[in-house]
Amino acid sequence: MSTVTADEAVSALRAIVGERGLLQGADMASYEQGARYGLGRALCVLRPDSVEQVQAVVRWCAARGVRLVPQGANTGLVGASTPDDSATEVVLSTSRLRAHCEIDVDNRSVSVDAGVTLQELNERLEPHGLWFPIDLGANPTVGGMIAANTGGTRLIRYGDVRHNLLALQAVLLEPAGELLELGRALRKDNTGPDLKQLFVGTSGAGGILTRATLEVHVRPSQSATALVVPTSDAAVLQLLQALERELGDFLSAFEGLSGHAMQAAIDHVPNLRNPFAPEPAPDFALLIELEASGSRTYTGLDLQEALNQFLQDQFEQTIDNAVIGNGHELWHLRHSISEGARALGKPIAFDVSVPRSRIMAFCRAARALVAAEFPFLHVVDFGHIADGGVHFNVIWRHGADQAYDAATVQALRDRIYAMVVEEFGGSYSAEHGVGPHNLAYYRRYASPAARRLAQGLRRLVDPAQLCGSVDFG
Amino acid sequence: MSTVTADEAVSALRAIVGERGLLQGADMASYEQGARYGLGRALCVLRPDSVEQVQAVVRWCAARGVRLVPQGANTGLVGASTPDDSATEVVLSTSRLRAHCEIDVDNRSVSVDAGVTLQELNERLEPHGLWFPIDLGANPTVGGMIAANTGGTRLIRYGDVRHNLLALQAVLLEPAGELLELGRALRKDNTGPDLKQLFVGTSGAGGILTRATLEVHVRPSQSATALVVPTSDAAVLQLLQALERELGDFLSAFEGLSGHAMQAAIDHVPNLRNPFAPEPAPDFALLIELEASGSRTYTGLDLQEALNQFLQDQFEQTIDNAVIGNGHELWHLRHSISEGARALGKPIAFDVSVPRSRIMAFCRAARALVAAEFPFLHVVDFGHIADGGVHFNVIWRHGADQAYDAATVQALRDRIYAMVVEEFGGSYSAEHGVGPHNLAYYRRYASPAARRLAQGLRRLVDPAQLCGSVDFG
Repeated sequence: MSTVTADEAVSALRAIVGERGLLQGADMASYEQGARYGLGRALCVLRPDSVEQVQAVVRWCAARGVRLVPQGANTGLVGASTPDDSATEVVLSTSRLRAHCEIDVDNRSVSVDAGVTLQELNERLEPHGLWFPIDLGANPTVGGMIAANTGGTRLIRYGDVRHNLLALQAVLLEPAGELLELGRALRKDNTGPDLKQLFVGTSGAGGILTRATLEVHVRPSQSATALVVPTSDAAVLQLLQALERELGDFLSAFEGLSGHAMQAAIDHVPNLRNPFAPEPAPDFALLIELEASGSRTYTGLDLQEALNQFLQDQFEQTIDNAVIGNGHELWHLRHSISEGARALGKPIAFDVSVPRSRIMAFCRAARALVAAEFPFLHVVDFGHIADGGVHFNVIWRHGADQAYDAATVQALRDRIYAMVVEEFGGSYSAEHGVGPHNLAYYRRYASPAARRLAQGLRRLVDPAQLCGSVDFG
Repeated sequence: MSTVTADEAVSALRAIVGERGLLQGADMASYEQGARYGLGRALCVLRPDSVEQVQAVVRWCAARGVRLVPQGANTGLVGASTPDDSATEVVLSTSRLRAHCEIDVDNRSVSVDAGVTLQELNERLEPHGLWFPIDLGANPTVGGMIAANTGGTRLIRYGDVRHNLLALQAVLLEPAGELLELGRALRKDNTGPDLKQLFVGTSGAGGILTRATLEVHVRPSQSATALVVPTSDAAVLQLLQALERELGDFLSAFEGLSGHAMQAAIDHVPNLRNPFAPEPAPDFALLIELEASGSRTYTGLDLQEALNQFLQDQFEQTIDNAVIGNGHELWHLRHSISEGARALGKPIAFDVSVPRSRIMAFCRAARALVAAEFPFLHVVDFGHIADGGVHFNVIWRHGADQAYDAATVQALRDRIYAMVVEEFGGSYSAEHGVGPHNLAYYRRYASPAARRLAQGLRRLVDPAQLCGSVDFG
């Protein structure tokens, strides 16, 4: 516990970060409330604008036992970047650490401050024909993406953030304020344990990320898209295999959309039409995207034509119907599902994954479970079939027969996660990480040996466990 | 130190692994000598054929302070898998852990015992149209590849072993013999720190790897190859950029071969001809390889034709000359360099990397350094330009003016590594890892904070530091 009064802490921290760098009261609102879960009260919010300020803040807080919660753009979905309700924690926002963004075009890499957002990073990269190809429905910071090991819809082609992280700079809690440089702008570097991994996917536990070097990629020059109705569950995996065999060099997304998910978006998001009109949206569809770089000069490649021909040959084998082209419209449908679902009622979100060989069986079993045991709930599921990720989201509809209650939500969560982990060899957190929202499941499913190791890792960098909202022990 | 006599240890360990599972005396020779460095004397060599035997061995050794050196196929190049010369260490070979190899075609993954070799793994995968696309001039085991985080010539396309590792099973030293299961056959799984990383690229320190789940890839159905002479150093990076922009979806290798390297192979390896004959081998050439999957039905793609046209357009811009096609012959030249170099004399190997934006400048500077300070030595360098890796190998030729001496070799190593790390922002071990052979440079170049953390990581899994030949403190 802290050894200073709130007033003493605030004045000392203001002296470090300056008037503009410290927020209190109502100004803290957007930092205290998470994007989906997490609502607390902070002692204050700090917005340092230099690594030296971060170091001084960490030194001051560590010496006095003041807890720090690092925060990027606060777009995380497990409550890991928001304070608890004690009003004693300091939110350390990295949003003003954004002056540095140095692109090495020859090395296809960028060194960038932790507070730069994904969108800004891609705006900087675009003139060089490059991008950082993480695609998701939010605009996180670089530091936040590392702490969450962000995946998104194009993981199958480009990997997650872990795969694209070359180097990292972090401020340690022990020795307090020490600046740790891990890795260099190198693709091959095997000089002992990869210490960067201490900070990847660990929800901000153990240190403040201040800068990173990322591998970036050549921006595609053409893409092809289709929305496809498979003939059966088994056909989905047959189609994916055929696609990887025939056009796998280009496959960038293979997303599953349930009929409920499409309908929720179509019914509730303005300017969105049913791509299958006048027919109703089907029970299930696959959004397929291919991407290629290059000017076609050498390959003569017309990706949309290649995809169309491929789909033509799949008719009656694995697919019943297909809507071709207009990638923008089809992706708009995909990205509108969450908004559509929210319009229906209160979402209960499950970000899970299973081996992709079992993904259709899992979705069917989980839908059956909800129908049998929670018939008043409405499933709006969609997922990244090719990487095994499923957003098995369940909606407690406005005006449902049964009134919303937390115990039922808890029972549902227990049942779904048990099915994922125990029956399907899956994960209860595919791409959102671990935070206060799902920490109970970490404690349930991590083995005692794994928990002991995870806690040991954190104690190495933060023995007093002052940084981050998650205790992995 | 051990509390038992050698005889007691041998009988107790024989009781665990059986007569066939324990080697002594001359039978140990191939386990005591590393592929390039490392020559020691073991107490005995154990070849357990089950995880239960591994657990029992670890429990027995940990209780008595007997040190273990895990070994796969013993193809490593830094002496990490061979014992010291005390005749007190036990070599634990995983080469008989090879019964399990279960392919999940739909999930594009394989669960495989640590002792299965890369070649065997690929033979098992081939009938399914799949492969594990690590390419190198040796046949390591799966466990060895994880411990070394093997990269190889196609890293630019497929990543290293770390990128393709989904799950891992290891036997811990603390609690001794505990079997730790880390990860599942999932591409998206963010449930806390990625503990697998404790065992990736750590040279066998801290635990015995017994099984892994790997992501595997679709085997390409066509490839295109060319050996190209660039107009200048600057042209190399221009060519690489143009290639990634135009044909980057297919680029699988972009290797640099110095004239000395080609000549050494041509002069000394049977049945290898100079591809530029009747002209002599040039001062430098690039081996370019493209790969694509699929039957061409949908893309109409002819990769060799695409590459040829691309190179045609590069003539006089970035390239002076090109030898097209016969990938087998060109790769044979590339893979014969080490044999050719060994024929010239005693190699002094440097497996280094730099940001690829600086790779040509580094090679030039390093060659100039050798010419100025060590004129009696002969540089035979080649490298993976696209991933920044350079095998800057130097040969102490048979019959050189100056006789081989260790102090000069040491001085050369100090100078080259200093140039790599201090002047070029590079790594003194790109893909071979850290072992007794280069541990002094780990101690020189790892920051005190990094060393403290690395040692802390190991102590978590192996507090008495009984497993592995490298102390990262």
